[in-house]
Amino acid sequence: LYEFDEDTRVERVGPGAYAGRMTDRWGIGTVPNGGYVLAVALSALGDALDAPDPLTVTAHYLRPGRVAPVRVEVETIKVGRSFTTAGARLVQGDDEIVRVLSTWGELGDHPEKIHVGALPPALPPRDAAERRTAPPGSSIVDRVDLRLDPATAGFQRGERAELAEIRGWIRFADGRPPDVHSLGLFADAFPPSVFSLIAPGWVPTIELTVHFRARPTTPWLQCVFRTRFVQGDLLEEDGELWDESGTLVALSRQLAAMPRPRPTTGV
Amino acid sequence: LYEFDEDTRVERVGPGAYAGRMTDRWGIGTVPNGGYVLAVALSALGDALDAPDPLTVTAHYLRPGRVAPVRVEVETIKVGRSFTTAGARLVQGDDEIVRVLSTWGELGDHPEKIHVGALPPALPPRDAAERRTAPPGSSIVDRVDLRLDPATAGFQRGERAELAEIRGWIRFADGRPPDVHSLGLFADAFPPSVFSLIAPGWVPTIELTVHFRARPTTPWLQCVFRTRFVQGDLLEEDGELWDESGTLVALSRQLAAMPRPRPTTGV
Repeated sequence: LYEFDEDTRVERVGPGAYAGRMTDRWGIGTVPNGGYVLAVALSALGDALDAPDPLTVTAHYLRPGRVAPVRVEVETIKVGRSFTTAGARLVQGDDEIVRVLSTWGELGDHPEKIHVGALPPALPPRDAAERRTAPPGSSIVDRVDLRLDPATAGFQRGERAELAEIRGWIRFADGRPPDVHSLGLFADAFPPSVFSLIAPGWVPTIELTVHFRARPTTPWLQCVFRTRFVQGDLLEEDGELWDESGTLVALSRQLAAMPRPRPTTGV
Repeated sequence: LYEFDEDTRVERVGPGAYAGRMTDRWGIGTVPNGGYVLAVALSALGDALDAPDPLTVTAHYLRPGRVAPVRVEVETIKVGRSFTTAGARLVQGDDEIVRVLSTWGELGDHPEKIHVGALPPALPPRDAAERRTAPPGSSIVDRVDLRLDPATAGFQRGERAELAEIRGWIRFADGRPPDVHSLGLFADAFPPSVFSLIAPGWVPTIELTVHFRARPTTPWLQCVFRTRFVQGDLLEEDGELWDESGTLVALSRQLAAMPRPRPTTGV
């Protein structure tokens, strides 16, 4: 069993009710990564629904997750011919930490491309790329192999850039092939692109939406994340995730608040 | 009372429960526009919650709406210091037609712009712009004054373009000033940008997310909508809405299915 599958596993404990555990292996600092938390929700939704693939998933983050047991309650909202819509609540102790709304259907491995009006991000070879640094104790760096384009990694050396854009390669460190389930994690696993502009800190995600557009077919994904508008204490981050066959596999967008001091929850 | 306020008005009929009516004045063909339907949900949420402004709203469209009474059931999920998260169900008869998930807070009229990495869409003067055509009987064209950039309006004459991009000016026809509440409507009121590529038809929205980024302060908004990926029967549409002061007021993104025959629901 790969680490990701082990750590997002949930067990059905009742109608639409699942039990799992958030582990300490996907932390940014000591807080479980938001994409990892989303992946736990997708495990429960995927089990509860007949549709094979998420097409669009929105998560509203209510509180930081903890390394602790988690309960997922799935609400099936509508089962249609092509699409199934369902919500999920993630609860730890007495606190709901994430609310999810999603629509599921079926994606292709090799979807017919009727129009592609963009190119995959231009990246240097992986061995010319730069390892990511992360806050002390961030266990996610041992799970996810992230190679940043040095042209967009100056923030790791305290440099500032004109644009908030971070590009790079990503894969699971233990060799697990990426699939649709893992795209929610990868959509939130890069350092925030706003770090190119302002001092790194904790950038709390308010809402993350991922459009799943194809099943990835290669071990590495090539990604770009951009923030164009930082105003009134809010910022968005737009992501594109492509596989090495040149297929866009996901688009992501999150609304986040300006960086603030990092929360410290006991592990 | 302006038409928009009249037609999105809801009455509280119980704890978190609201009653309204979807009118025949915002139709694309005979189906109420999805942005209008969303605006009805925002009316109920706005009344139920203490927070003044939606910050991010996601709607999953389950069935076409009808010109008929509508019930809105609001679920308050979390009330925090800065953010309030709430869901809403829109129900007509026995059918839920839209499920909404949203987080609310407070926006500024003139938010501090810490970084703006984009320009408002370049548009010709409004009197050099082109009126939109819409399917026969589309009442929304009498409510919303939409002036398309002729450079992106070739689809109205059966022409095809290289890129799926539609730009233009928009405002309420009756002079109602745009506010945050109306941005959900405007985010879905342009013709689908994919019409630049393929024959117009009904493009069913699966999910629409709007990030509200500032309160608009001018009567007209300048907008651009782009579709970059049409693959496997799915497409996204990304929108930017700016006011005339040069402030981005909303970002939108929707996931939609490829055009298909238009539904005809009796009015």
